[in-house]
Amino acid sequence: MNSNTSRRQFLAAAAMAPVAGTVMAAATQATPAAGGAAAFAFDHQPVPLPYRPGKLDGLSERLVQSHWENNYVGAVKALAVVRGRLQQAMADTSLPPYVYNGLKREQLFRTGSVVLHELYFGSLGGDGKAGAAVRSRIAGSFGSYDAWETEFRRIGNGLGGGSGWVVLGYNQHLKLLENYWMADHSTAPATTTPLLVMDMYEHAYQMDYGAAAAKYIDAFFNNINWEAVEQRA
Amino acid sequence: MNSNTSRRQFLAAAAMAPVAGTVMAAATQATPAAGGAAAFAFDHQPVPLPYRPGKLDGLSERLVQSHWENNYVGAVKALAVVRGRLQQAMADTSLPPYVYNGLKREQLFRTGSVVLHELYFGSLGGDGKAGAAVRSRIAGSFGSYDAWETEFRRIGNGLGGGSGWVVLGYNQHLKLLENYWMADHSTAPATTTPLLVMDMYEHAYQMDYGAAAAKYIDAFFNNINWEAVEQRA
Amino acid sequence: MNSNTSRRQFLAAAAMAPVAGTVMAAATQATPAAGGAAAFAFDHQPVPLPYRPGKLDGLSERLVQSHWENNYVGAVKALAVVRGRLQQAMADTSLPPYVYNGLKREQLFRTGSVVLHELYFGSLGGDGKAGAAVRSRIAGSFGSYDAWETEFRRIGNGLGGGSGWVVLGYNQHLKLLENYWMADHSTAPATTTPLLVMDMYEHAYQMDYGAAAAKYIDAFFNNINWEAVEQRA
Amino acid sequence: MNSNTSRRQFLAAAAMAPVAGTVMAAATQATPAAGGAAAFAFDHQPVPLPYRPGKLDGLSERLVQSHWENNYVGAVKALAVVRGRLQQAMADTSLPPYVYNGLKREQLFRTGSVVLHELYFGSLGGDGKAGAAVRSRIAGSFGSYDAWETEFRRIGNGLGGGSGWVVLGYNQHLKLLENYWMADHSTAPATTTPLLVMDMYEHAYQMDYGAAAAKYIDAFFNNINWEAVEQRA
Repeated sequence: MNSNTSRRQFLAAAAMAPVAGTVMAAATQATPAAGGAAAFAFDHQPVPLPYRPGKLDGLSERLVQSHWENNYVGAVKALAVVRGRLQQAMADTSLPPYVYNGLKREQLFRTGSVVLHELYFGSLGGDGKAGAAVRSRIAGSFGSYDAWETEFRRIGNGLGGGSGWVVLGYNQHLKLLENYWMADHSTAPATTTPLLVMDMYEHAYQMDYGAAAAKYIDAFFNNINWEAVEQRA
Repeated sequence: MNSNTSRRQFLAAAAMAPVAGTVMAAATQATPAAGGAAAFAFDHQPVPLPYRPGKLDGLSERLVQSHWENNYVGAVKALAVVRGRLQQAMADTSLPPYVYNGLKREQLFRTGSVVLHELYFGSLGGDGKAGAAVRSRIAGSFGSYDAWETEFRRIGNGLGGGSGWVVLGYNQHLKLLENYWMADHSTAPATTTPLLVMDMYEHAYQMDYGAAAAKYIDAFFNNINWEAVEQRA
Repeated sequence: MNSNTSRRQFLAAAAMAPVAGTVMAAATQATPAAGGAAAFAFDHQPVPLPYRPGKLDGLSERLVQSHWENNYVGAVKALAVVRGRLQQAMADTSLPPYVYNGLKREQLFRTGSVVLHELYFGSLGGDGKAGAAVRSRIAGSFGSYDAWETEFRRIGNGLGGGSGWVVLGYNQHLKLLENYWMADHSTAPATTTPLLVMDMYEHAYQMDYGAAAAKYIDAFFNNINWEAVEQRA
Repeated sequence: MNSNTSRRQFLAAAAMAPVAGTVMAAATQATPAAGGAAAFAFDHQPVPLPYRPGKLDGLSERLVQSHWENNYVGAVKALAVVRGRLQQAMADTSLPPYVYNGLKREQLFRTGSVVLHELYFGSLGGDGKAGAAVRSRIAGSFGSYDAWETEFRRIGNGLGGGSGWVVLGYNQHLKLLENYWMADHSTAPATTTPLLVMDMYEHAYQMDYGAAAAKYIDAFFNNINWEAVEQRA
């Protein structure tokens, strides 16, 4: 695998939709699987890692490969299964709506896991050095770049031993750049574009660091690909 | 109150950030409260109802006024209090991160409530008739407009007697227009722009309809402002 | 309906299992539905209100009847449907375990709703006057009876406009009597016996009090049946 | 450390409260910390592992020691901190109730983690062979012992890569022995006594098994101490 090529593929897939008129216009561009509507029959293929799994500094090849293969690709497969069940359930008019919603909850959970893992792997592979422009933009909202980093790490440390995500996101509705704590792949702030996401599920670090979540957070920061973060913004 | 003026103010406030270059660029435009950074000191004022509270068909003035005043404005005030507590907590370095995260969870919850209520009230005030363009875009993803409406109502009915939101949203990352079930103001699909949101908390209908959630859903559909939905898209 | 009789039936059904040896022994006493095991085929009948729905002071007959009929009996029916779906799912070995768990989550949620509503209706119908014994036991754990009531009301007020339960419960494992905040019918402290439960879902008060949750809490306190609470203890 | 002695201490601490009259009576036996009420000032000491951390078959000493020390003892310490914060918050009458509830949520979460971890470690250390009596009691509710084990393992497999607990519990109110899926340490079925609990947080297995949750479940079953489970029942 040529990592430059796969990286470009990844970033292209992970990038925001080009704003061609409106979102509604863009929505018509989604290609439904044969014989079905996109909302139900959407077919999502796993996005390759944008770098060799052994490339990251302080995160072992075994950990990164297992994380990508078992947790991320597993979520892609699970989402496809849930979507298939939803199609059957839509056709079953005797199914009570609260049972239907149990599947919608799974869809929400799996969709979050797929999207967040793609943003996560796409957030890494860099040298951890934020450029002047991004530092100044972060400082513009948080008072200083250090204040931002302190809060981002603090939320991560509070999730050690549990599960969840930390997100630097831009709230489109409030026009506000801030950090969010997320649980369960599925609690996310409405209307928010995640720019940098850190996976705090234990599968992101236990193999390498055991319970030492703070050391994993150090390693995460050392590998941030700030160019990719800026492209999302 | 001149409802035309207030409606314009509302739609302006509720609209997406103009895409001036990038999100990061837009972030610098957010105006922090005096003496503080926007991420912590952000000051959000309640957005007036974009119509008279008695204007809606089948939703009483008493219900709409109470919903706006108690639940929405209450959420705006609560978010301001939580933000104030977060600023104190940031300065308290002895505070364990998991206690800090308790406040971040509240922030996530209240932020979701503020944003979703603004989108909700802004989704209403119309005649419920979707134009040809929006119908065709919805059909492009869901197979047919009716298939979309059936699922949207089904999720709503499944939430009757409980609490949560139903969202028609465009997932920017997956380039996919679909319906989502949401709980707690805070479970939202990452990277998704909500286009139409329906409040299924009981405060949205109990006063008028008691436990008859399906009748409320009928009333909601009769009042959708599809032009506003299209502007979000 | 003879309310004395139905009240006795209710209290009997709501009472703790007589401790005949051990829990395991008691478990064998559960009567499975014909042709099925109790864990899957358990058949639970709605427990009648232990008093006339119009009897309560400050909670209208319309509200109480709707709450019992729509929310409580609705939960009993939903639980039966979920159990039926679980039996089918158990036999479907191709069903992925995470889809199975979606149903287990619904079972947890509906079971909580059934049990908590039975304890709730059984907590009311009295004159709100706690006897000396129960006051002294509460004071033994909370410092004073007033400190307990203050915290119990405070948790309730914090849930106004949302959904959840407030519980005075005895944690069997920690040997500790304390108040708990609960969400979603399903967050409950492990090993805890609920003694007094207050429903803070909006269906418990919106019809009578709109958004004025604090007035509902006053009415709840005025109607507590402390003898029933003591019997649970 | 004499493991026989510490095991006895553990089982004594983990045992249900002796039913001396009523729960309310038992509640008065809880010893408050000096100068405070038990509900707020309760002081809980970590319970030692009831066996050497290296004793278990297929679960490494490093894993078990880290799980006990970092996750369980960490939860005990966190609960004490949260209780301290709650005492301060009770005295702060200007604190809005929804901010107070943020702490109550943490208390619920940490209490669940403490109790469930004590039951979990106390569930292990045996030879995995269920005696005839317990097998027959389980079969009485589930149809067969195998049907029970199949569902218990299935729920566990569905939690692989995520977080949560699987519980065989006796629902005191419904008089029903069944399996439950639990999330977040805090979703538990009301009025239920957990008899056997399996930790599916990734800290319970990632160090030894990576993402292979099914192998961990095998190891868990091989180490169940069924005598301890029966004592809880």
